[in-house]
Amino acid sequence: MTDDRPATALPTAAMLVIGDEILSGRTRDANMHHLAGELTKHGIALREVRVVPDEPAAIVAAVRALAGAYDTVFTSGGIGPTHDDITADCIAEAFGRAIGVREDARAILAAHYERTGLELNEARLRMARIPDGAALIDNPVSAAPGFTLENVHVMAGVPAIFEAMLASVLPTLTGGPPLLSQSLRVERGEGDIAGPLGELAAEFPDLSFGSYPSQRGGVFGATVVVRGSDGARVDAAMQRLAALFPEALA
Amino acid sequence: MTDDRPATALPTAAMLVIGDEILSGRTRDANMHHLAGELTKHGIALREVRVVPDEPAAIVAAVRALAGAYDTVFTSGGIGPTHDDITADCIAEAFGRAIGVREDARAILAAHYERTGLELNEARLRMARIPDGAALIDNPVSAAPGFTLENVHVMAGVPAIFEAMLASVLPTLTGGPPLLSQSLRVERGEGDIAGPLGELAAEFPDLSFGSYPSQRGGVFGATVVVRGSDGARVDAAMQRLAALFPEALA
Repeated sequence: MTDDRPATALPTAAMLVIGDEILSGRTRDANMHHLAGELTKHGIALREVRVVPDEPAAIVAAVRALAGAYDTVFTSGGIGPTHDDITADCIAEAFGRAIGVREDARAILAAHYERTGLELNEARLRMARIPDGAALIDNPVSAAPGFTLENVHVMAGVPAIFEAMLASVLPTLTGGPPLLSQSLRVERGEGDIAGPLGELAAEFPDLSFGSYPSQRGGVFGATVVVRGSDGARVDAAMQRLAALFPEALA
Repeated sequence: MTDDRPATALPTAAMLVIGDEILSGRTRDANMHHLAGELTKHGIALREVRVVPDEPAAIVAAVRALAGAYDTVFTSGGIGPTHDDITADCIAEAFGRAIGVREDARAILAAHYERTGLELNEARLRMARIPDGAALIDNPVSAAPGFTLENVHVMAGVPAIFEAMLASVLPTLTGGPPLLSQSLRVERGEGDIAGPLGELAAEFPDLSFGSYPSQRGGVFGATVVVRGSDGARVDAAMQRLAALFPEALA
């Protein structure tokens, strides 16, 4: 079993899973296992995970404890549009920051809802509440951004979105250059996408290709995200993708 | 989402998942989701889960924190025979108890290994290390007992065993009478057992029937456990089981 024990020199991480539905058993968390595997691949040692309810005192206390004890913290859950999505406010409180609807986040959501024909109502506007000083984390699947504040990366609970957000955050943690990314929405099942995507990935080994199942306007499909440090290469791959899936939407 | 929020009057519980292999991503934990669902069914509010490595300081600190903050704590993992199975020693340390090989646990293991033709070697004898004052938790699947000390129930990490141990502990927490149980080892797939077992369960609605997949001596099968507060009824159900599966072993 010692092969699981990381060297003590590795950077350390902790995870905070937020959600009453996890603790009630209604939903089975998938993000912990995903994060654990990804961190191991990237040479970061996951040292503790906590699961807490959607309650301010519990979230604030856990964030402070974990952020103080480990190099990096990842949170999952509670950044959606409903009244019990309180994570952003709790993170702000944990670090003594102000929080309100921020223009950059609002603009991202406004553009997304205009494109998809939905209303940017008061509930959805909650997802533009970002603590002062936080950096946004891109959400290529459903637009509403996560954010990084101090050493805490605040991400969605929906697995496809969590995975996409993590993929954009991880390279920045291991000293790699920030990755540029572009995405495409393809309204086919992942099974139809996988083959062509795999071939494209083999042609562009310097890029990474992810596909994240998502529903938009009641239609199932996937968001394909291409990431790389060379913008021209990402452009080239995107052109190939558009040719492979001509009906796709940016 | 408020339907997941438990009433504050419910007894509270926490879970401690112990294992480097969970944090490395090599193994996906299944017990948290199972425990959450079972506690909800039994009217107990799971309020926090922590996952920690197989390290003494981490385990001791987490046990003390959770046992002090919640009515009941369930731990999963680290009570097997290998050198990194240190949970029992950590629980003893957390509560300032002595620990050593205890005769009742040793006798259970000795009987099991004699029956299955394996050696009760030094490694396996570690599983008979029980803190002073702890009560044993029956393990109908593979004999090595869990234990309860103060308000902490220490159980196996292997899902089938965790589930079986939890099923014997839960009724005692909700004020029900302790359940008597008998078990039978059936060397067939669960798919072959499920039908007859379901019919038997319908005939004995006052009893509960669980089947736990397990391997014994390289042969796959299941341990069927019958539980109830009326010993005569459990006997009757066991006789019916023996007739349904004549090749089964006690």
